[in-house]
Amino acid sequence: MPRQQLPFNVLKTGHVELRVTDLERARAFYVDLLGFVETERDGSCVYLRGLEEWEHHSLVLRQAPSPGLGHIAYRVAGEEDLEELARLARDRGLPARWLGPGEERGQGRALRIQDPLGFPVEFYHQVERVERWLQRFHLYRGAQVMRIDHVNLHTPDVKAGQDWYVGTLGFMVSEYTETEDEPPRLWATWLHRKQNVHDVALMTGVGPRLHHVGFWLPEPGCVLRAADILSAAGFEGTIERGPGRHGISNAMFLYLRDPDGNRIELYTCDYLIPDPDFEPIRWALNDPKRQTYWGHAAPKSWFDEASLVETFDGVGLMEVRQPELADRPAHVGH
Amino acid sequence: MPRQQLPFNVLKTGHVELRVTDLERARAFYVDLLGFVETERDGSCVYLRGLEEWEHHSLVLRQAPSPGLGHIAYRVAGEEDLEELARLARDRGLPARWLGPGEERGQGRALRIQDPLGFPVEFYHQVERVERWLQRFHLYRGAQVMRIDHVNLHTPDVKAGQDWYVGTLGFMVSEYTETEDEPPRLWATWLHRKQNVHDVALMTGVGPRLHHVGFWLPEPGCVLRAADILSAAGFEGTIERGPGRHGISNAMFLYLRDPDGNRIELYTCDYLIPDPDFEPIRWALNDPKRQTYWGHAAPKSWFDEASLVETFDGVGLMEVRQPELADRPAHVGH
Amino acid sequence: MPRQQLPFNVLKTGHVELRVTDLERARAFYVDLLGFVETERDGSCVYLRGLEEWEHHSLVLRQAPSPGLGHIAYRVAGEEDLEELARLARDRGLPARWLGPGEERGQGRALRIQDPLGFPVEFYHQVERVERWLQRFHLYRGAQVMRIDHVNLHTPDVKAGQDWYVGTLGFMVSEYTETEDEPPRLWATWLHRKQNVHDVALMTGVGPRLHHVGFWLPEPGCVLRAADILSAAGFEGTIERGPGRHGISNAMFLYLRDPDGNRIELYTCDYLIPDPDFEPIRWALNDPKRQTYWGHAAPKSWFDEASLVETFDGVGLMEVRQPELADRPAHVGH
Amino acid sequence: MPRQQLPFNVLKTGHVELRVTDLERARAFYVDLLGFVETERDGSCVYLRGLEEWEHHSLVLRQAPSPGLGHIAYRVAGEEDLEELARLARDRGLPARWLGPGEERGQGRALRIQDPLGFPVEFYHQVERVERWLQRFHLYRGAQVMRIDHVNLHTPDVKAGQDWYVGTLGFMVSEYTETEDEPPRLWATWLHRKQNVHDVALMTGVGPRLHHVGFWLPEPGCVLRAADILSAAGFEGTIERGPGRHGISNAMFLYLRDPDGNRIELYTCDYLIPDPDFEPIRWALNDPKRQTYWGHAAPKSWFDEASLVETFDGVGLMEVRQPELADRPAHVGH
Repeated sequence: MPRQQLPFNVLKTGHVELRVTDLERARAFYVDLLGFVETERDGSCVYLRGLEEWEHHSLVLRQAPSPGLGHIAYRVAGEEDLEELARLARDRGLPARWLGPGEERGQGRALRIQDPLGFPVEFYHQVERVERWLQRFHLYRGAQVMRIDHVNLHTPDVKAGQDWYVGTLGFMVSEYTETEDEPPRLWATWLHRKQNVHDVALMTGVGPRLHHVGFWLPEPGCVLRAADILSAAGFEGTIERGPGRHGISNAMFLYLRDPDGNRIELYTCDYLIPDPDFEPIRWALNDPKRQTYWGHAAPKSWFDEASLVETFDGVGLMEVRQPELADRPAHVGH
Repeated sequence: MPRQQLPFNVLKTGHVELRVTDLERARAFYVDLLGFVETERDGSCVYLRGLEEWEHHSLVLRQAPSPGLGHIAYRVAGEEDLEELARLARDRGLPARWLGPGEERGQGRALRIQDPLGFPVEFYHQVERVERWLQRFHLYRGAQVMRIDHVNLHTPDVKAGQDWYVGTLGFMVSEYTETEDEPPRLWATWLHRKQNVHDVALMTGVGPRLHHVGFWLPEPGCVLRAADILSAAGFEGTIERGPGRHGISNAMFLYLRDPDGNRIELYTCDYLIPDPDFEPIRWALNDPKRQTYWGHAAPKSWFDEASLVETFDGVGLMEVRQPELADRPAHVGH
Repeated sequence: MPRQQLPFNVLKTGHVELRVTDLERARAFYVDLLGFVETERDGSCVYLRGLEEWEHHSLVLRQAPSPGLGHIAYRVAGEEDLEELARLARDRGLPARWLGPGEERGQGRALRIQDPLGFPVEFYHQVERVERWLQRFHLYRGAQVMRIDHVNLHTPDVKAGQDWYVGTLGFMVSEYTETEDEPPRLWATWLHRKQNVHDVALMTGVGPRLHHVGFWLPEPGCVLRAADILSAAGFEGTIERGPGRHGISNAMFLYLRDPDGNRIELYTCDYLIPDPDFEPIRWALNDPKRQTYWGHAAPKSWFDEASLVETFDGVGLMEVRQPELADRPAHVGH
Repeated sequence: MPRQQLPFNVLKTGHVELRVTDLERARAFYVDLLGFVETERDGSCVYLRGLEEWEHHSLVLRQAPSPGLGHIAYRVAGEEDLEELARLARDRGLPARWLGPGEERGQGRALRIQDPLGFPVEFYHQVERVERWLQRFHLYRGAQVMRIDHVNLHTPDVKAGQDWYVGTLGFMVSEYTETEDEPPRLWATWLHRKQNVHDVALMTGVGPRLHHVGFWLPEPGCVLRAADILSAAGFEGTIERGPGRHGISNAMFLYLRDPDGNRIELYTCDYLIPDPDFEPIRWALNDPKRQTYWGHAAPKSWFDEASLVETFDGVGLMEVRQPELADRPAHVGH
């Protein structure tokens, strides 16, 4: 590892804000069925966290006229990191604005920028500490969601996206996918700051769109249990893909579509990466074990559909752009 | 298997009635913490069942001035079996009486006898069918208790007890324990009518006493989860022994003492016995892997303490008698 | 339950003989990957059993020029049951012959008949007892197959098949599927002698064909592990369907195609049926949760393909007949 | 978090070298029973790793005349970190020496020091990369050990030990134990560089001694499986404590004594700490849920016994010193 040269230190994916059209319905899905812990709510938002988390929220559901992504937030190591990131945004000419303490509930001052991929991204350090429910086993419910793990983003140019995240923000590559062209082209990449497989993945696709938010479960049995609970409650239609094992990341997974169609992944069994010189793992786009290690093809909807992204001014949704590369393996039909 | 010669057909251990001194406190333990389903309650009793069960109840908690066993109930295949069992009781001079339909809630006519071991035993066939919650996964709670599995009884003379259960009632031996005397003497026996390891076990001890009631869980993870939940709720003091693996029966287990001191076992991973000519498995009393396959000794309380048994007239508790044989392995102190 | 009127007592599905075209290859699949225990082998056969089993074999792989079913075997309670069954075959005019002791390795005298559905069925009682590996945990391998559970058969007329199994052989119905016709017609049925969901299932289809043989695993984790192991060894192509949860039977499952295309099911989490008056559970053919509780459709191959069945003289394969009813739910294409 | 001021970056606990008196016997325990992967061996050592690891070894078994700890090794981020650490040792007057590349198999140049607690500690960066078996599921064996997790050390003065690890080496505190004195005194501390609960724990005790080495398993089921496998193979005597759930760290655990009495912990279900400002969790020494969340007391041997530590010159074993504070909770006898 090169000595840390960057003037800021991004720690992890901290939270995601999803737009939902019916707050009660969304709350029931995330809290009553999946077992998120509700920290608090106000007129327009519900603030949720996982059982292992001590931050005020890792998922915000916000009432909005249409589904989609509100913003992604990365936690940084200190207040001064925010200053450095504001300077970076200014230097790059990226739209940016400060949020005052409490402007987002449970959070101190924060910086929002529109990143070069078109996503509204927040950086924050100060956050309200709430009770961690890790050992309140008698209150565990549903899928036993432990913590937010990652976001997965559709972007038309993964190479450019990786340059931003790795070259500028200091993320590290754990695994990646290349086309079978000669020379091969980067098709997707898994990037991390915290020490597991990813905080963010970038996949070639119509973008900017949020493909999914991943939440971490304590063991594979919880993935199965989530599918059982959803089906018993009449929500089997929310199960889009899985349960299965990923080739990439080694994780056991279940992909769900929330009542607004926003996609989340229940995810466990990936691995720890304490070494910054971990050698990234390469996958070929058309390797049938890449997506599902057991050989199952992902459904067409998994490639076609993703959440639109709020514009930086919050008044609309970002226009999307087609990728130059194919947006799926050859064995998945259009 | 010899052709079925008996004029009656005992199917299984159907339910157990426990005496508790604080009905609300007991209900909270069994329902809120362990996850039993409450079918109904009346002034003096709460009627509970497991997630896989369709009978009105498999566990009755009855308000009483002291803890203990109310009665054990075995289900028989038909009404005419009850007549035959009444005849048997009369022939043997055993105390017996009929309960009218509904005298015990959710149940048709039933026969109660005092068996030769001194236990109040009920036989019934007709029972109210209620909804089976097997696939209501969103309502699963606590340890996910599936069904009643067995009772374990302390009796001073296991040989005589086995004669009654096997010779008269038609139970079959799955496993048994002998002393290391020459010739060896029968110390404990596991007996079944349904096709798993036991409906009833008899252990040498001060009796008649109920050692424990066993309930079946779907997998080992639920045994661990039960211990976590109890501890998180401040009930770690109810955990008497385990989690562990039995040598006998191969089951994963957890022994609990309910708020009145009645002992229950959470139990899973035993095996199926579809063959009446299954060869019983012999264990030596002092084999350290007999009780806990991993070599852990059971605590002294596990040998010392058990629930007293209601007299047949219901007005008192049965006097107990000391066994002739030692009531525990040599490696467990008195 | 009516008093047992039948002059014989079928205990359970005891074993199945599969035809394989490459004995070594098949042995490697079942033993090295799935973890069956090899009891012994001779020039043409390999004799396998599960970890919980004490019988000489529950699965026989026999070298043959083409894949398919050799025979199905049911264990009966005693030798005299065989005489009664021979009388039944004679009365019904069913082809029948006796096998001498040892004619099938590890087995005493046995009766083979061709049943009215066209399947070669063996009844046996005497069998060589071998060591049960239940507590030889250090020798557990692969999917940890515990025991044979059931056979699933394609037959053009399920109603007639159920008449034979229930009316004549004394099997009991646990669950069944009806069409949505008015009046509804029986489309499939799950039948048991041992006390769980089934020993045999009959499904409407081109028959007589063996759809699959089901083997029981100790817990859902073993189903996932089987998929991982197969994929790691390069056998992901053998995974046809699952892992998933059945609506019918509640089981967690994984369907595999062995190297010859014979289909097996790894199966766990069904339930116990100690009561002969268990009320059968009805499913509608087009209920999307019937096959997979999570709503996943079974693949087309699962309906199209099945193993042909050896003729009673062993020299050919049975011709098959089309069913009158549709052989799949409406949502599965032809 | 303060900006990283230290001139070196310790990444994680990298490996441990244990002294064993019978190399074959030790190898059989770790490889055949516990499922470690053997990278290679030479005349005096066996080099082992876990299924998730890509380094040449995380555990070295070295033939020696008596059991004990050979050395502990921490991986650093780069070669220049070693220079800085050598400078630190010189400044502090700590015994230190360089190992040339390959002097320890599979490893580049390394620095060995005797730390202020008396332990032989190695720092290394360059290491031979070998195949990671994470997705070779068909080769998984035993307890499915994934990776080394931590070392736990007995030292008479935990406060001084923490000063060294936190103040000098840059470790962070995740959890700690204090006496119930007024003011309370530090009794034990859990310290990490990688992002989970610990790389090293220090406990008040006779020291310097190695209390145990912890290895990480993928899920609680593997802890149970380890106990089953050991018992089936006749090694139940190696199980010293557990399976259980720790209050501290939340981990599921099993403590084993290898054939030489060296103690290892199989460990899983702790949590991720991506935030350097994680608020350390305080436990009172006599809290009965601290050690085992379910309330079980640790056995006396667990407090009494630990492995002696090789002197820096390798020719003897370090003398030990008694702690000033009590070396165990009040409820554990001496």
